[in-house]
Amino acid sequence: MPRTAVIVGAGLGGSLLAHFLGQRGWHVRVFERRGDPRARGYVGGRSINLAISARGIHALERAGLADEVKTHGIRMPGRMLHSPTGATAFVPYSADPTRAIMSFSRSALNMMLIQAAASHANVELAFDHRCTEIDEARGEVTFERADGTRVAATADLIVGADGSYSAMRGHFEKRERFEYSQSYLAHGYKELSIPPVASGPHAPFAMDPKALHIWPRGGSMMIALPNPDGSFTCTLFWPFEAPAGSGEASFATVRDGKAALERFRREYPDAVPLMPDLVGEFDRNPVGSMVTVRCWPWALGGRFALLGDAAHAIVPFYGQGANASFEDCESLVDALERHPTDVATAIDEYQRDRKPNADAIADMALANFVEMRDKTAHLSFKLKKKLDHALNRWMPNAFVPLYDLVSFTTVPYAKARARARRQDRLVLDAAIALGALLVVAAAFVGDRLLRTPGATP
Amino acid sequence: MPRTAVIVGAGLGGSLLAHFLGQRGWHVRVFERRGDPRARGYVGGRSINLAISARGIHALERAGLADEVKTHGIRMPGRMLHSPTGATAFVPYSADPTRAIMSFSRSALNMMLIQAAASHANVELAFDHRCTEIDEARGEVTFERADGTRVAATADLIVGADGSYSAMRGHFEKRERFEYSQSYLAHGYKELSIPPVASGPHAPFAMDPKALHIWPRGGSMMIALPNPDGSFTCTLFWPFEAPAGSGEASFATVRDGKAALERFRREYPDAVPLMPDLVGEFDRNPVGSMVTVRCWPWALGGRFALLGDAAHAIVPFYGQGANASFEDCESLVDALERHPTDVATAIDEYQRDRKPNADAIADMALANFVEMRDKTAHLSFKLKKKLDHALNRWMPNAFVPLYDLVSFTTVPYAKARARARRQDRLVLDAAIALGALLVVAAAFVGDRLLRTPGATP
Repeated sequence: MPRTAVIVGAGLGGSLLAHFLGQRGWHVRVFERRGDPRARGYVGGRSINLAISARGIHALERAGLADEVKTHGIRMPGRMLHSPTGATAFVPYSADPTRAIMSFSRSALNMMLIQAAASHANVELAFDHRCTEIDEARGEVTFERADGTRVAATADLIVGADGSYSAMRGHFEKRERFEYSQSYLAHGYKELSIPPVASGPHAPFAMDPKALHIWPRGGSMMIALPNPDGSFTCTLFWPFEAPAGSGEASFATVRDGKAALERFRREYPDAVPLMPDLVGEFDRNPVGSMVTVRCWPWALGGRFALLGDAAHAIVPFYGQGANASFEDCESLVDALERHPTDVATAIDEYQRDRKPNADAIADMALANFVEMRDKTAHLSFKLKKKLDHALNRWMPNAFVPLYDLVSFTTVPYAKARARARRQDRLVLDAAIALGALLVVAAAFVGDRLLRTPGATP
Repeated sequence: MPRTAVIVGAGLGGSLLAHFLGQRGWHVRVFERRGDPRARGYVGGRSINLAISARGIHALERAGLADEVKTHGIRMPGRMLHSPTGATAFVPYSADPTRAIMSFSRSALNMMLIQAAASHANVELAFDHRCTEIDEARGEVTFERADGTRVAATADLIVGADGSYSAMRGHFEKRERFEYSQSYLAHGYKELSIPPVASGPHAPFAMDPKALHIWPRGGSMMIALPNPDGSFTCTLFWPFEAPAGSGEASFATVRDGKAALERFRREYPDAVPLMPDLVGEFDRNPVGSMVTVRCWPWALGGRFALLGDAAHAIVPFYGQGANASFEDCESLVDALERHPTDVATAIDEYQRDRKPNADAIADMALANFVEMRDKTAHLSFKLKKKLDHALNRWMPNAFVPLYDLVSFTTVPYAKARARARRQDRLVLDAAIALGALLVVAAAFVGDRLLRTPGATP
C-alpha cells in the first residue's frame, strides 16, 4: 500500500497537502527551497495578503483548522469603491450580508499550515533544499543544499507544489508532447501600505476594515486589504508601459516616488493623507509581474504530479489562487483514498478532475481584472450587482450570481462558470421580452391617446 | 558600423542568413550542433522533403541561387487525391497552370545553402558546437564542443536559428515577461517511401510526379512528395491515440508493420503494391510529433534575435515552414540595411514585421491539416476550388484565392489571410443575394403558372 510521499515546496498548497497526508498516516518528506519561516519567528503585520473564500475555508476546516481561520482572518463582506474625487461607495459581494471573503496574511497562513504539517511525527520538513532534477525512470527527485551537497529522494508519490516558477514543472517541460504556455499581463504591481492610526471612526484602521478597497481608474487600479494590526496592504496595478502620449500612468513613465506622489494627488487623492511613506515605499519596493501558466499533463510516470501554482498559476484578481490550490489538495487526497493501492490512477483522476476547473478560474481571474479596474467605476456595475442580488433574493436556488458561486460555494469553477452563463442568458432573454412588451404596451397606449377625441391625429 | 554576426544553427534559415550577410560584407561565424553534412557527402534520394513556393523561391533567387532551384526542385502544380477505392483525382493548386509548388530534398537544399554561405571568405562555419548559454549583459554566447571544451563568442548581432527546440530560445524563456507557448498536435507522423520503378507510364516514378499525392481519410491521411531519384517520400499522419472503440487507426492501436499492412490494405489499397518495404519501414521508423511554438519577444538586449522555427515552429500542412524562415532572413537583412549603424533598431523592426505574419501562417497551417486530411475527400472541396479558380480567372486582380496568396505571391501572410476573408465574405454575400433572387424568380414564375388558365389554382 503506497504510503510515502515527497512534496517539493512548503508553501500554502505543499504544507496543506503534507498535513492532509500526515493525518492519513502517510510518511511525508517536504523539501523547501527557502529557509524555515519558524526560525525567523512569526512575521506579522505588513506582508502580501490574500483573500480566502468558501473553498479555502472548506479545506482548512476539513484540515481541522477552523479556529485558526477565525483568529487570523478579517471578514470583508463587500468592496469599497473610491472615486477620483474621494467619494466612496460600498457594494456588497452577496445578497446575503453574512457572506464575506477573508483577508489573510500570506505568511501567517503559511506558518499555520507548516505548524499543522510539522505536528505529525510522520511528516518531516527540510528547508534550504532546492529541487535540481527529476529522474522519471528511477522515480527520484534530487535536491541541492545551501552547502552544495545533494540528496536524492524517492517515494510512492512525488508532488511538485513549488509555485508559479516550479522547478519540477521545468523538468516536465523538457518531455515531448508537454503542452505549456506562460503569458504575462501588460500590467505590473507594486506593494504599498496604509499604516494604523491612533484615532478616527475605524481606529486602529485608517479606513473601514470590513471591505476590500478598490480605486478603479480604467486602465489602472489600486486595492487595499486590511491586516490584523490595523494596517492595510495596498497593491498598485499599473501598466508597465502606457501608449505614448496617452498621459496614462505606467511604471515606465512614473519612475520614482516623487513623480508617484504627484500622480497620486491627482488620481488617488483620498489615499495620499493615509500613506505617509508613499514616496519611500514607491522607491524601495520592486515592480512585480503577473503570469498565467497552463500546462498538461500534470501527472507523469505514475508517481510525479504538479499541484497549485506549479500546475496553474493564475492572476490574483478573483482572489482564488490559494483557494484553488487548497481544492487541488482535497481532490488529490480524495483520489488517493479512492485508490489506496494505485497512485498512478489516483493522480490521473486528480489531474482530470482539476484541469478544467483550473482553466476556468484562470480565465475568470483575467476577466475580473477588467471588472475591478474599469467596470466597478461605472454606475452600470452597481446596477448590475443590485439586479443580481435582487434576482438571487427572489429565486435563491434558481439564480446565484457568478461571484457568489465562485467565492461562497464549492461548486467546481467550470460548472460555476457554465451555470452563470446560462443564468445571464436567461436574464437577457427576459429583459428583451420585457422590453418588447413595454414597446407594445407603449404603442397601444400611444394609439389610444392619438385616437382620443380632440387630440391632433 | 556593425559588421560581425554569430549565427546559431546551420539549418535552412541559418545558412541562408549567413550567405545574405556574407554577400553584404559582414564577418559571420555560424555554429552548428550537428556534424558537417559536407563531410558525409551529398545525401540524395530519400530524405524528408519539403515544399518550396513563391516566397522561398523569391528569397533563393535574391540569394543568387535561381539555377540551383531549377536543378533540385520538382514542380507540383496540383494535388492528386487518392480515394479508399484507389480512384484518383487531380485538383490544381491555381487557376494558372504555370503555377506550382516545388518538392525539395531538405538535405539537398541545406547543402546548397551551406555551400553558398561557405563560398564567402568572410563566413566561417563551425560544426559540432552545441549552444549552452547566453550572457545578455556581456553580449556573449557559449558553445560546447564534442570534446567538452567550451568557446565563447560575441558579435554585433547574435541570431538563434537553431530550430523548433532552440537552445537560444530556452535562454530567452528564463527571463521575466517572456511570452511562450508550445502546443503539440494529437497526431504523430511516420516516414515511409515508394521506391522508383523500372517501367510504367511515369517511370522511374511509380505515380505521376507532377503532384503532391494525398490519401485523405477524415481523421488521418498519408501524403507523398516526389524525389529527383524517382522515389516518393510518404508521410503517414495518424493520431497518437484514437478514441476507444472508434476503430480509427492510431499509432497506439496499430503497433507494428504487420498490423499496419493489414490496415493499409483496407484504407490505402492503391499504395500497398507501391510500398514493398512497408512492413520493415513501419517497424524501423520512429513516430514524430508536431509542435506549434509561439513566443515574444524575438529580440533581446539589442543584439540577440530568434529566426525561423526557433521563433515560430509551425506544423507542416501548408508547406510554409522553410518559406517563412527564408522570409525572416529577407526581413532581417532589409532591416539591417535600413539601420546600418543600429542593430537594436533593426532587430526590433524585424520582429515587429514578422511576428503577425508568423502567427497568421501558424494558424493557417493548423487549419490546413483539417482541409488536407478531411475536406479534400469531399466533392464540396473540388467544387469550391473550381469556383475559386473560375472567380480568379474572371477577376484575376480582384479575387485571388487564399492558397494562391500564400503559395504563389509574397503578400505578407497576415494580409493574405485578411484579404481572403474579405473575398470569402463577398462571395458568400453574392451567393445569398443570388439565392434570394432565384427564390423570388421561382415564386414569380410559379405564380404565373398557377394563374395560367386551365391550371388548378
